[in-house]
Amino acid sequence: MRNVSGWAAHHRGGPLEPWHFTRRDLLADDVAVRVEYCGVCASDISAVRHGDVFPLVPGHEMTGEITAVGSAVTRFEIGDKVAVGNIIDSCGTCPPCLAGRENWCRRFPTLTYGNTDPKDGLVTRGGYSSQYVLPAKFTHHLPEGLDPAGAAPLMCAGITTYSPMKRWGVGPGKSVGIVGMGGLGHIALKLAHALGAEVVQFTRSEDKADDARALGADDVVLSTDEKQMAAQTGRFDFILDTVGAPHSVEPYMSALGMDGTLCVVGIPEGAIEVNPLSLIQGAKTLAGAGSGGTVETREMLDFCAEHGITAEIELMRPDQINEALGRLARNDVRYRFVLDMAAQRQ
Amino acid sequence: MRNVSGWAAHHRGGPLEPWHFTRRDLLADDVAVRVEYCGVCASDISAVRHGDVFPLVPGHEMTGEITAVGSAVTRFEIGDKVAVGNIIDSCGTCPPCLAGRENWCRRFPTLTYGNTDPKDGLVTRGGYSSQYVLPAKFTHHLPEGLDPAGAAPLMCAGITTYSPMKRWGVGPGKSVGIVGMGGLGHIALKLAHALGAEVVQFTRSEDKADDARALGADDVVLSTDEKQMAAQTGRFDFILDTVGAPHSVEPYMSALGMDGTLCVVGIPEGAIEVNPLSLIQGAKTLAGAGSGGTVETREMLDFCAEHGITAEIELMRPDQINEALGRLARNDVRYRFVLDMAAQRQ
Repeated sequence: MRNVSGWAAHHRGGPLEPWHFTRRDLLADDVAVRVEYCGVCASDISAVRHGDVFPLVPGHEMTGEITAVGSAVTRFEIGDKVAVGNIIDSCGTCPPCLAGRENWCRRFPTLTYGNTDPKDGLVTRGGYSSQYVLPAKFTHHLPEGLDPAGAAPLMCAGITTYSPMKRWGVGPGKSVGIVGMGGLGHIALKLAHALGAEVVQFTRSEDKADDARALGADDVVLSTDEKQMAAQTGRFDFILDTVGAPHSVEPYMSALGMDGTLCVVGIPEGAIEVNPLSLIQGAKTLAGAGSGGTVETREMLDFCAEHGITAEIELMRPDQINEALGRLARNDVRYRFVLDMAAQRQ
Repeated sequence: MRNVSGWAAHHRGGPLEPWHFTRRDLLADDVAVRVEYCGVCASDISAVRHGDVFPLVPGHEMTGEITAVGSAVTRFEIGDKVAVGNIIDSCGTCPPCLAGRENWCRRFPTLTYGNTDPKDGLVTRGGYSSQYVLPAKFTHHLPEGLDPAGAAPLMCAGITTYSPMKRWGVGPGKSVGIVGMGGLGHIALKLAHALGAEVVQFTRSEDKADDARALGADDVVLSTDEKQMAAQTGRFDFILDTVGAPHSVEPYMSALGMDGTLCVVGIPEGAIEVNPLSLIQGAKTLAGAGSGGTVETREMLDFCAEHGITAEIELMRPDQINEALGRLARNDVRYRFVLDMAAQRQ
């Protein structure tokens, strides 16, 4: 077994504290990754607040360096810069897995933390830690030119927004709305702009308007302003709703044009309510998406490298993690916290 | 003006009674249609119960014969057999209209009854009447070989179910569920079977199972049986929900496989509630559809003629309309009432 240091919540809702644990010795197909940067995702807060298995080590947006490779690994060498996201294994044999869409693995993929890994029977521990051990298949080369700190959030926030935008054809000639300008929203904005769409950022925070324009928004709509919202009726081919707090989807259904799609990637507590006529009139669609498989994750990283897209981040030391989680819970971040895991070792 | 006899509700919730009214003289692009058959749609009940403009003459599933043509009409001659549905005009200039998708006309299409027709300022009166006057553009040749009584319901129930099935690629290799076996559901079942899909009929009525199989169902699932429902998990590419009464969509979201779509065409009162994770896990969509434009309506009629598809009907005299509406409200119909308007004139 390999000794690892990390940051864990020891009980539900508890603070994160330094913790030592072990990971498995490398299997033939495994690699070991020294975690250099780890993004702080809203789902890390949910896991600490509502998780079932403690101690819990969150973190599923990692970049780092290969420190060891299993005997059967050919894609990586020691020293390679890599990225790891929120899925670290899957059954490998079901149709989604065979299509490289392991996020919909029929057995359910092995998540980066808080899952029991069928391969070793251990609870998975996340990237708020010094190193990670996982199959090479779920490890991605970090393209040259991508800053590893800013690239870490691409591994959850990036792929979760890239995947639905590709599915619904976001590109030139399409009018796209992004709801919410947090960790997911601000990357979605950059991606939609780079994909060539006309992009409108919806936000409740008037003071984010300048940032939105700087990141690629053609227009900014204050979602608390009924008049501005009414003016959006029928405008959009596609709207990506990244807001995790409960809110009505009706204003965004109205903003869709014929055949339009509203895709939710935030996970509000409770049910989404939608008037059937909001779906029927104009043949509209309410959809969901989450994460992506290995094929699309590589495509996303290449796309981001080509267009110079990384997250806007605030870099924090690991010992600031509780402050970071607290500020994230209050939406006080521009626009993603990333932990500099090396700062722990200095 | 042209004198017309018909059946009208004179106040909200009132019974339908014989009534005489007028329609406009033919404009250059108009045709006059002697109504021979008119289907009884659930939305006729809604209109009588909740409408705003009375007297109200319902009915938007008509077949009949051309009795007069305007001076500019070249597509029709007197004596032609025709069909008319729930849209009788539209702006003609917006992008959906130019694409032949007039059901999404940006001005809003002129509905067959209960709307004010911008062309003549009159309230539109429906097909529970002796004749109809409308633009030739929204009048469709009834293909030879289609029984005009059984074909009448194709003009609402048929096109409303055909359109989403075409949009979501129902065909060979696809697994399709039909929820509800009423007027819409039983036609959807026939259409999905003719399109080459594997079709499963969901019903609350065990005694409809034999009919479902006879109409093309490969399998029948009793939706009140939790065990049968649980066995459907992940099975379907597409589910068409035709149920107009409030019900949970969650069992059907579960029955969808990866990338699957649940499309609602019934209009329950109140909001549809859906768990965001039901959308996110498997990248599923909840969609709506209603009616179709002139292009797709013609395609649908040709498809039905090619495959010998008409509605299963109970033919009623117009003076039985209140009985028909009452039985329809109790789901006591197999599977569509059609009024034999000629029986009124005998």
